[in-house]
Amino acid sequence: MIRISILGVGLIGGSFARSLKRTATATDSFEITGYGRRRELLDRALELGVIDRGETDLARAVAAADVVVLGVPVGAVAELLRQLRPLLTPEMVITDVGSTKGSVVAAAEEVFGAIPPRFIPGHPIAGTEKSGVEAALDDLFVQRRVILTPVEGSDPHALTTVRQLWQQCGAEVVEMSVRQHDEVLAATSHLPHMLAYTLVDTLSRMEEHDDIFRFAAGGFRDFTRIASSNPRMWHDICLNNRAALLKTLEQFGTELERLQEAIRVGDSDVLLRTFTEAKQARDRYATKESSGDE
Amino acid sequence: MIRISILGVGLIGGSFARSLKRTATATDSFEITGYGRRRELLDRALELGVIDRGETDLARAVAAADVVVLGVPVGAVAELLRQLRPLLTPEMVITDVGSTKGSVVAAAEEVFGAIPPRFIPGHPIAGTEKSGVEAALDDLFVQRRVILTPVEGSDPHALTTVRQLWQQCGAEVVEMSVRQHDEVLAATSHLPHMLAYTLVDTLSRMEEHDDIFRFAAGGFRDFTRIASSNPRMWHDICLNNRAALLKTLEQFGTELERLQEAIRVGDSDVLLRTFTEAKQARDRYATKESSGDE
Repeated sequence: MIRISILGVGLIGGSFARSLKRTATATDSFEITGYGRRRELLDRALELGVIDRGETDLARAVAAADVVVLGVPVGAVAELLRQLRPLLTPEMVITDVGSTKGSVVAAAEEVFGAIPPRFIPGHPIAGTEKSGVEAALDDLFVQRRVILTPVEGSDPHALTTVRQLWQQCGAEVVEMSVRQHDEVLAATSHLPHMLAYTLVDTLSRMEEHDDIFRFAAGGFRDFTRIASSNPRMWHDICLNNRAALLKTLEQFGTELERLQEAIRVGDSDVLLRTFTEAKQARDRYATKESSGDE
Repeated sequence: MIRISILGVGLIGGSFARSLKRTATATDSFEITGYGRRRELLDRALELGVIDRGETDLARAVAAADVVVLGVPVGAVAELLRQLRPLLTPEMVITDVGSTKGSVVAAAEEVFGAIPPRFIPGHPIAGTEKSGVEAALDDLFVQRRVILTPVEGSDPHALTTVRQLWQQCGAEVVEMSVRQHDEVLAATSHLPHMLAYTLVDTLSRMEEHDDIFRFAAGGFRDFTRIASSNPRMWHDICLNNRAALLKTLEQFGTELERLQEAIRVGDSDVLLRTFTEAKQARDRYATKESSGDE
């Protein structure tokens, strides 16, 4: 039996717990302890069967844990690590689920001097615009990717443990460097969220905003769904992946300027080429995705 | 029996034809003629049962028509109207399905001196990222909105005819001014398409673009689906709704700058407030939408 402590039983932590429980067998089982500051949320998680035990005391929550999972937003990781520091044993494997990895590694370095060898930073590329344990699903990670970003000195056994847990949840585990992770996610996730938030914000400031939202078509709904995501989480992501995000925002701004100029001067060639190339890139990618051919 | 000539049997024109045919009764039926320059596309539309007759000759296509529907991209409307001019009778009702209305009215004014009283500009707020008659659906307009933008001097009987045809397709018909239409659509449709195209374009220019597309998650797929739309159509829309689109692009650019600055200086308040307000606006709108309460 593996004893897992999930610190922060929200959408991701709760779905991780549910996924492990779904796949548990008589010989391969888990005892899952949830930690949080609000007793009523832990009681709800217990009631839903997401966790086996709920603790509002961190020391009790991690005592005897084999694996400690940091399930809090990236902005809360540093403080949690500070509190964890005196409670960890050298045997415990630690991992996290944060959307930015550079900031998590930096926080660990600050707290521990160097990132502990058995702390394997991770990030499941899955989620919904919902949050909280009520939204947790036991198949959230099935056929989704989980990125692990081991660093120099990471313990290979700890890496294997974390990898196997995610694989047991149905995920495909890939490794990349911390820097690569933060750049790729800035482009594919953080930038689109900024655009969706800014679009909704822009529209709601327009005089005719009632009409605007009333006549918005399906494409708009899909496009802005991600603007329903947890504001606190995205606040944390912005501040914790600042450099990579600002870089992609700048690149986007340059391309948008170029397009605006083409519209302004009526440059048919630039418009047609931009739209055609984007369509080709999107279609190529969408085809890959649906055939699973990667 | 109403004789309808659809000039340009693509996704929208074809779906209009299919929708009317689906709802036809013994006493309320349609003869649908399709016009296009490529015989093989008309043959395909005939084969699919979308149209009853296919004509590559415009005079033959509109002879004896009760209603003429311009189903071409907005960039092709002016030329089509020039060719139509000598062929129209005062009894014929004309309408179009273009995504911009100011440019269509301007084209009609240029060709006819003033927009003919029986020409009722229209725009169904429906579509998919697909195009062409093969993608035409007989329920594309069910519970979707169709905006009609009659102008001063529009014939009320012609307006009623066009309205009833769309209602027969299952659509909810609303009226607004040409200017209001173009502003609302710039915000809710044209701007999001520009952002999606620009996002995909930006990402495909990045060095790590293979990784970027490989690790893109579900939110990104939804977000960029509209970048698969027909490049020629969007080229036309950009050039035919230039003023309103440039205005919304500028407003968006200002808001994006504001967000970038907040990230740069780490202004938690602005970030949290922006994301929270956007989420509230989006959720309010999404709830309205799903309950049909408007």
